Amino acid sequence: MTESPQGQAPSGAAADVPVAFQDPSYLAAVVDLLGAIAYGEMSAFERLAEDAKMSPTLADKAELARMASTEFGHFEGLRQRLADLGADPFEAMAPFEKPFDAFHARTAPSDWLEGLVKAYVGDGLAADFYREIAAFLDAGTRDLIIESLADAGQSQFVVDRVRGAIEDDHRVGGRLALWGRRLMGEALSQAQRVAAERDALSALLSGGVDRPGMDLAAIGRLFTRLTENHSARMEKLGLAA
Amino acid sequence: MTESPQGQAPSGAAADVPVAFQDPSYLAAVVDLLGAIAYGEMSAFERLAEDAKMSPTLADKAELARMASTEFGHFEGLRQRLADLGADPFEAMAPFEKPFDAFHARTAPSDWLEGLVKAYVGDGLAADFYREIAAFLDAGTRDLIIESLADAGQSQFVVDRVRGAIEDDHRVGGRLALWGRRLMGEALSQAQRVAAERDALSALLSGGVDRPGMDLAAIGRLFTRLTENHSARMEKLGLAA
Repeated sequence: MTESPQGQAPSGAAADVPVAFQDPSYLAAVVDLLGAIAYGEMSAFERLAEDAKMSPTLADKAELARMASTEFGHFEGLRQRLADLGADPFEAMAPFEKPFDAFHARTAPSDWLEGLVKAYVGDGLAADFYREIAAFLDAGTRDLIIESLADAGQSQFVVDRVRGAIEDDHRVGGRLALWGRRLMGEALSQAQRVAAERDALSALLSGGVDRPGMDLAAIGRLFTRLTENHSARMEKLGLAA
Repeated sequence: MTESPQGQAPSGAAADVPVAFQDPSYLAAVVDLLGAIAYGEMSAFERLAEDAKMSPTLADKAELARMASTEFGHFEGLRQRLADLGADPFEAMAPFEKPFDAFHARTAPSDWLEGLVKAYVGDGLAADFYREIAAFLDAGTRDLIIESLADAGQSQFVVDRVRGAIEDDHRVGGRLALWGRRLMGEALSQAQRVAAERDALSALLSGGVDRPGMDLAAIGRLFTRLTENHSARMEKLGLAA
């Protein structure tokens, strides 16, 4: 009498899966979103590992390697969730290879400091964006996404190193400020491309028959928030946005 | 009356530090050894992240990224231990940059399969070697080293992928067998270089006034064991040693 059916304990993130995912278009959108974040984490791992090569010291290299490993840890959680939802994690990630790879190809840092700024600004922007979308999701998916965004690139280490470099040579600040603006531009242009190509994902933002969504004005406000947060991050690094 | 002096709890790995490390030459040797392993883990992280780029599929890439992250996790433990011993972890690692980097430069895999074999064979060989040395150490250091060697590259995944490739094209087996022999040769030659340059480390192997060590015959037997284990690993991969 007290046993759960099939012995499943209805606790934790998996509990709400059956209810929220009865709508197949919702399921498709979440799989798309998790696929995008998962590919983003994996490519962040790759890029941080690559950028670590430019580290001036072994200690600096270890900091970047730690960020890379953190991103990979997030990836593992997302992959598991995709599998739990009955999706092939790598199929879910595949549509996002091109836009993420294009972003990284267009924003390959030319030195260690550009790599740090990219980690900080890019990670922060992605986190903001996904957090906004997560607000429209079931609790289990939302919690997983919030966890996956746990500030891999937002370390005080980056702030200290970038500010220190600007103190040593103020021209560095001008160059990195331009770099930050370019990162933001490239990120928005790839995000637009994704939104245009992935119907399920953009449907999630604009809502459905019985699901609230964002109208054009709300999407405008979203972009304002993203831009404001980006400026705040640049300021924290000592850079003009 | 029941309080420990300075409130230190004599439990866990740190408990034996004060006793075993009263001999400064022992401390120097352990710092050297942990520095070598730590640098090895960090460079394994870098190499696996680099080799991951050659992965034929996203799923394969994720497997290599997981190995890389595992190596980095080991590195973190070793760094902490070095700091606990009062050493600067990065200074301790510095003498090993050259030999490890030289090993990796001479054994850059030309494709994904060579990368897999290198991860498997190289990781296994390093683990064997450090495990042999660990037998001469205090329990705390020994346990940490054994933990750090927890089979990052020894996965069934590697065995399956290499065996599968040989089944598809038997010529692959001949090429990879040669590759495995080359890896072993380069590893031994770099290990010899380290032994020649690092007095404290080689003193650890040969023993001290009140510490048992290995005579030449014992070192010969050590190399026989390393070679036998290498052959066993090659065989597991379906390769002639």
